[in-house]
Amino acid sequence: MASGHTVKAFDEDLGQLRALISEMGGRAEAAIIGALEALVNRDLESAVRIVEGDRRIDELEAEVERQVVRLIALRAPMADDLREVLAALKIAGVVERMGDYAKNIAKRIALLQEARGMEAMAVLPAMGKIAAEMVRNVLDAFVLRDAEAAVAVAARDKAVDDFYNSLFRTLLTYMMENPHNITASTHLLFIAKNIERIGDHATNVAEMVYFAATGQQMAERAKGEDPLSGDI
Amino acid sequence: MASGHTVKAFDEDLGQLRALISEMGGRAEAAIIGALEALVNRDLESAVRIVEGDRRIDELEAEVERQVVRLIALRAPMADDLREVLAALKIAGVVERMGDYAKNIAKRIALLQEARGMEAMAVLPAMGKIAAEMVRNVLDAFVLRDAEAAVAVAARDKAVDDFYNSLFRTLLTYMMENPHNITASTHLLFIAKNIERIGDHATNVAEMVYFAATGQQMAERAKGEDPLSGDI
Repeated sequence: MASGHTVKAFDEDLGQLRALISEMGGRAEAAIIGALEALVNRDLESAVRIVEGDRRIDELEAEVERQVVRLIALRAPMADDLREVLAALKIAGVVERMGDYAKNIAKRIALLQEARGMEAMAVLPAMGKIAAEMVRNVLDAFVLRDAEAAVAVAARDKAVDDFYNSLFRTLLTYMMENPHNITASTHLLFIAKNIERIGDHATNVAEMVYFAATGQQMAERAKGEDPLSGDI
Repeated sequence: MASGHTVKAFDEDLGQLRALISEMGGRAEAAIIGALEALVNRDLESAVRIVEGDRRIDELEAEVERQVVRLIALRAPMADDLREVLAALKIAGVVERMGDYAKNIAKRIALLQEARGMEAMAVLPAMGKIAAEMVRNVLDAFVLRDAEAAVAVAARDKAVDDFYNSLFRTLLTYMMENPHNITASTHLLFIAKNIERIGDHATNVAEMVYFAATGQQMAERAKGEDPLSGDI
């Protein structure tokens, strides 16, 4: 019975840890979508709120760290359980970074008050929506230990990359057409890059979730043979 | 005596962990400097070597993770010791990302074969040298638990940021002067941003080292009051 007790307490602690990470993910997801809405609407007040809201995500990560220390000290988890706890810690770190990307997007909005009529600004929210959904779906997959859902998340990263590559070309064309577009296009390019990185991080989490659930590595994403090609 | 034994074993394990992270840092440092040399010399062979060498950094991070699991399971460290082990795990994660930035710089070299006579290409290695030194110095500070050295690392981040801001303006001017410069300048801007991020990450590690050594937060870096200003 004592052993059953310990297992139950560990599972409850792990559940609490997962709930904290889910909350971080929900906030990161909302920040991504909110930042891109604020961009399109030139809404500086929302931008400020998103930047300031990132502190809460940072605090939640610190709370995850404290819980992990407490959980390990109290329950002394072994092997697989310990690996799972450390995976949760790592995932919390990734979600914290996703929050930073959303914050960085929000910070650029003040620099884009004069950008007008740029198609890219209409496309970025659609790109951000996919990335934000990847964040939500991968954290759901993490909570449910759902390897199949993790694979589905990783599969969507190509859509985000395609958006990025298309925007890269579009924005460079804007710049070439009119030097007045160069500063704004550069900021939009960095925003697109931030969204692309969020997709990459969601994919990395998907790989961790898959590994935790199956004990195997997710099949390699299609990559070019040339080491100098691919994600930059 | 048994307790003395355990303490010694724990310290040895922790020392081994630190040595692994030092090796990761040495490789990341070399990759940063190597990538910028390869950029200036348009040396595609070195670029490929750097991209491929990043795998070793990733492997070392995986090795750190295994050692952490082993150390916790075997030594059951408590409170401060446990926090120190988890800090080492976190720092390994940051160094892995630094390696990724160096890899991303190396990957862009193939896209810059036609860029000529750009002052930025001469400035980037100087900027990269500071960032690489910050990486080395902060990992030395970590190994020696040297809070003062950590403060010195954080203080250098401003120099990297100043380089970045100056390059941002320079590269945008190039683009405005001649549309033919736009593609190359964009890639150089991303490279500058990668170096700037390496400096930020070194500063974050410095803050962790400082906290681990003193139990206090490092004094806030000078920040603007406006939440929309500052690092983007």
